[in-house]
Amino acid sequence: MVRLKATISYDGAAFAGYQVQPGERTVQLEIEKVLATMHKGNQVKITASGRTDARVHATGQVIHFDTPLSIPREKYQKALNVQLPRDIRVMKVEQVKDNFHARYDVLGKRYRYIWDCSMIQSPFRRHYAVETNGVKPNVEAMQEAAQAIIGKHDFSCFCAANTSVIDKVRIVNALELNWHGEELHMTISGNGFLYNMVRIIAGTLWEVGTGKREISSLSQMIASKDRSQAGKTAPAHGLYLEQVFYE
Amino acid sequence: MVRLKATISYDGAAFAGYQVQPGERTVQLEIEKVLATMHKGNQVKITASGRTDARVHATGQVIHFDTPLSIPREKYQKALNVQLPRDIRVMKVEQVKDNFHARYDVLGKRYRYIWDCSMIQSPFRRHYAVETNGVKPNVEAMQEAAQAIIGKHDFSCFCAANTSVIDKVRIVNALELNWHGEELHMTISGNGFLYNMVRIIAGTLWEVGTGKREISSLSQMIASKDRSQAGKTAPAHGLYLEQVFYE
Repeated sequence: MVRLKATISYDGAAFAGYQVQPGERTVQLEIEKVLATMHKGNQVKITASGRTDARVHATGQVIHFDTPLSIPREKYQKALNVQLPRDIRVMKVEQVKDNFHARYDVLGKRYRYIWDCSMIQSPFRRHYAVETNGVKPNVEAMQEAAQAIIGKHDFSCFCAANTSVIDKVRIVNALELNWHGEELHMTISGNGFLYNMVRIIAGTLWEVGTGKREISSLSQMIASKDRSQAGKTAPAHGLYLEQVFYE
Repeated sequence: MVRLKATISYDGAAFAGYQVQPGERTVQLEIEKVLATMHKGNQVKITASGRTDARVHATGQVIHFDTPLSIPREKYQKALNVQLPRDIRVMKVEQVKDNFHARYDVLGKRYRYIWDCSMIQSPFRRHYAVETNGVKPNVEAMQEAAQAIIGKHDFSCFCAANTSVIDKVRIVNALELNWHGEELHMTISGNGFLYNMVRIIAGTLWEVGTGKREISSLSQMIASKDRSQAGKTAPAHGLYLEQVFYE
């Protein structure tokens, strides 16, 4: 048995998310189907760094799995890509130690969130950036508000209510906002993220940028640990899991 | 009655092309359905600058139609965009003279063709650029070969056999090749293009760039007026109708 680590990219538009769910097309299901074919019908379970929701994209999701096949890594990658649907690609395959774990060993992650602020959204961006119908936010205000988020905090206010996680203290290392043409990109990295945390932060900062919320309200909001104090959860299709960090 | 000119953009991935065909989802059908709704069930025929094939994209297709509705142009555009499927967007609506004709008045067009030369194509580009599995062509050779195409020629050799057009003389004004990261873009403009002409030129230049065809063969090929002398028709999903020129 050999443990392999694979870095995968997927277009979330046609998936009901990462994790297997009965009757749904998911990323995990598609990869496990191909692995089962490669292993003569034997199930090969894959473990990801974490789930992503329906319509959320990934350019650098990481998974691990064990295989008895002694195929060179590049051939393994090719065999997977030949059989996988075109909205999932294996970008890299590496052999790792037997005790490597794609979820437990995560040191941090980076996400990207994209708003398309053009007057009329190009049809080519409809699944890949959230349209704002020409609304352009005050990015300086958003950047100032973001300073309250950076650091080590209990992020309960930015966590979807339906979660079983108890410890909600996380470290946000960086949060940047940059224009790419008429698209506004938010990148955020930290040691871990609660359920819906990036989308709730995006929704809250958007409200600051469009004058619906005070910059100064962020500190109180975080101190309150109350989800209802924060902004709306921003739409799923603007979100990308970009990189997962390991030792 | 007022004649309107509309500039439209569409993602060709989920269309069987521009023109209405029984039982198929086409761009013309979707727009005419919405116009019929806006006109209380009365059919409003639209006329485009020309057809595009299945999976071919457009960022600047032009159509015209006549309407008895006296709605301001911006409202007309909004009403169309609200009802149209998200893979078609109306980018602009202008009132034109009653004798303007989207097809007969065309002075020229510009197309773009995109090859994605990265080793593993991003899942986000699968419908929007032709994957070459890491093959990077000799662009200087392609550029040199392109010089034989620029100018006024009988382009029979670059025209799909199944066409009813008799006069195959056209002027190609410009043909450029440029790298955008790992993607190679070909832009071509001229006073008119024969059926499949851009895709056959793209396929032929690709063969030059990958050493399967001599640079010097282009002049003979054009002189032969024989489709079988030219290269393969490049795949549809790399092609974009970018702009249509009028007076």
